[in-house]
Amino acid sequence: MHSAGKSWLLLTGFILFYIIYLLFGALVFSSIERPVEDKLREDLDALKQEFLNQSCVNAASLERFLVKVLTANKYGVSVLRNSSFSSNWDLASSMFFANTLVTTVGYGHNTPLSDPGKVFSIVYALIGVPFTMLVLTACVQRLMYPLVLAPVGRLQRSGMEPRPATVLHFLLLLVLVVLFFFVAPAAVFSAVEMTWSFLDGIYFCFISLCTIGLGDFVPGTQPTQKYRSLYQVSVMVYLFVGLMMMYLLLRTFHKMADLHGLTTLLQLPRCEETDLDEEREPIVENGQRNPTPPFVTGKEDNRPLEPGSQLTYNTINKG
Amino acid sequence: MHSAGKSWLLLTGFILFYIIYLLFGALVFSSIERPVEDKLREDLDALKQEFLNQSCVNAASLERFLVKVLTANKYGVSVLRNSSFSSNWDLASSMFFANTLVTTVGYGHNTPLSDPGKVFSIVYALIGVPFTMLVLTACVQRLMYPLVLAPVGRLQRSGMEPRPATVLHFLLLLVLVVLFFFVAPAAVFSAVEMTWSFLDGIYFCFISLCTIGLGDFVPGTQPTQKYRSLYQVSVMVYLFVGLMMMYLLLRTFHKMADLHGLTTLLQLPRCEETDLDEEREPIVENGQRNPTPPFVTGKEDNRPLEPGSQLTYNTINKG
Repeated sequence: MHSAGKSWLLLTGFILFYIIYLLFGALVFSSIERPVEDKLREDLDALKQEFLNQSCVNAASLERFLVKVLTANKYGVSVLRNSSFSSNWDLASSMFFANTLVTTVGYGHNTPLSDPGKVFSIVYALIGVPFTMLVLTACVQRLMYPLVLAPVGRLQRSGMEPRPATVLHFLLLLVLVVLFFFVAPAAVFSAVEMTWSFLDGIYFCFISLCTIGLGDFVPGTQPTQKYRSLYQVSVMVYLFVGLMMMYLLLRTFHKMADLHGLTTLLQLPRCEETDLDEEREPIVENGQRNPTPPFVTGKEDNRPLEPGSQLTYNTINKG
Repeated sequence: MHSAGKSWLLLTGFILFYIIYLLFGALVFSSIERPVEDKLREDLDALKQEFLNQSCVNAASLERFLVKVLTANKYGVSVLRNSSFSSNWDLASSMFFANTLVTTVGYGHNTPLSDPGKVFSIVYALIGVPFTMLVLTACVQRLMYPLVLAPVGRLQRSGMEPRPATVLHFLLLLVLVVLFFFVAPAAVFSAVEMTWSFLDGIYFCFISLCTIGLGDFVPGTQPTQKYRSLYQVSVMVYLFVGLMMMYLLLRTFHKMADLHGLTTLLQLPRCEETDLDEEREPIVENGQRNPTPPFVTGKEDNRPLEPGSQLTYNTINKG
């Protein structure tokens, strides 16, 4: 099979496996945590009823009641009446939780209640986090040519110098990412989530796509929301694509920093360049070697010496 | 100045700036959030008193009271009596929060209450997250030689083949990291934090060092803890060094995967190799070029073709 076809087949396999892994995680989390949650909710309801039935409410009894309310709340079980019909561990919510684990966003709006749940979280993330990184890396690598190398090449062919071309391209990419992955989603979130302002939306997008995930704003947690499961799945897709774009942006910045001698100046590793010839030349099989491709010529020493002597990251387009 | 000396000076500068940046963040967060927190706490206390004073407690009044209690709790302000004397936004706690932002751990046990706090969080993380990555990368790069390249070289000189040597070294490093950054800290946490089991400790270490940071377990949040500020600073140091070791482990694994042809097989980028000669040969200044270093010899094509033809990542030790 042709190498490019093989490469896309591999990527499709990765993504399919990623979805299956999330579904598997959702099923396990749901089956471990749901009974524990139900029990906690029942206990809390009984406690609330008991509290209401007592003849006199004093500071001590209120304190005892509130300790239990806040402990249950920490585990995502709310004492409030309108939240008692929805679970944090239905299939969509469990999948959302599994997704926040493997992407390392980790909102913590619901967390495993039981010891088996904690152990499973560790094992699940131990496999899931590196695998998600791998899937994201594989996706970004395939996007580098159409979104970075090709546009920079086009700018250069239109007569721009390599360095201004990379800066212009980076700025354009940045504006597009800000518009489509911060401003637009923030507008949607502030429209869909009743209590969110536009700033809250921007804050949520930023805190999520940096994988900080504080969890003070999490979409789809209102039990009264329509099509809640579909909404949660959409947010998951947004998070995945958003993280991919953030990674692409970071990598583009890294390449630009290489070209401008910034990584050399700070004595940091340069950006990996093996994706330069991706999509261009099939990886040689049967050990047969290609003649030296143009971008390697003159590169006997792979340490950057002075910025001026470095090759631009799309020399190949001109080769 | 000698290049190695310059390199260490740069690293010291980075770390110093990192600490100053955390202190600066702590001061700003504390000054923005503390007044808002105090106001919320006062309101909540008044509300609690009002609730206690009413003659009859019915379901509706309890519900209204609980809504406000849980909202305040979401922002880290607890209604409970024993937590009313400590602030989430004293200097140490604010620094801890700033640290969870820039490392992307983001527990979310306390979160900005005010709009200016949210805006500052975004701007602070926008600079802080890439800078923290840079400091971590710079630290790891300087640790690669003593902790990875030198030990693998020693194993090889003692007669081991390159591949088994890298696997043995990786396993040893893994065991050491698990012992010193998971098992030992978990034992300490389960001893210091009254409500934590050993499993909770392991779960906390794992969730933190993967930067998931769910925030269901956060050390140093009990207001009654002795030397709480010192404890919080120690946890911050643990997080920083722990993240560094996780990154080192990941990088060692990546190099091992390169050597075993795994990255080639999955068509992923290879690990950056410019740190191979770190500490060995000073970076040439004034544009003067070194003769080709041994590890580059025969590497006209930098794409790995077949695993067997790849150079080991410490060929330099044998050169």
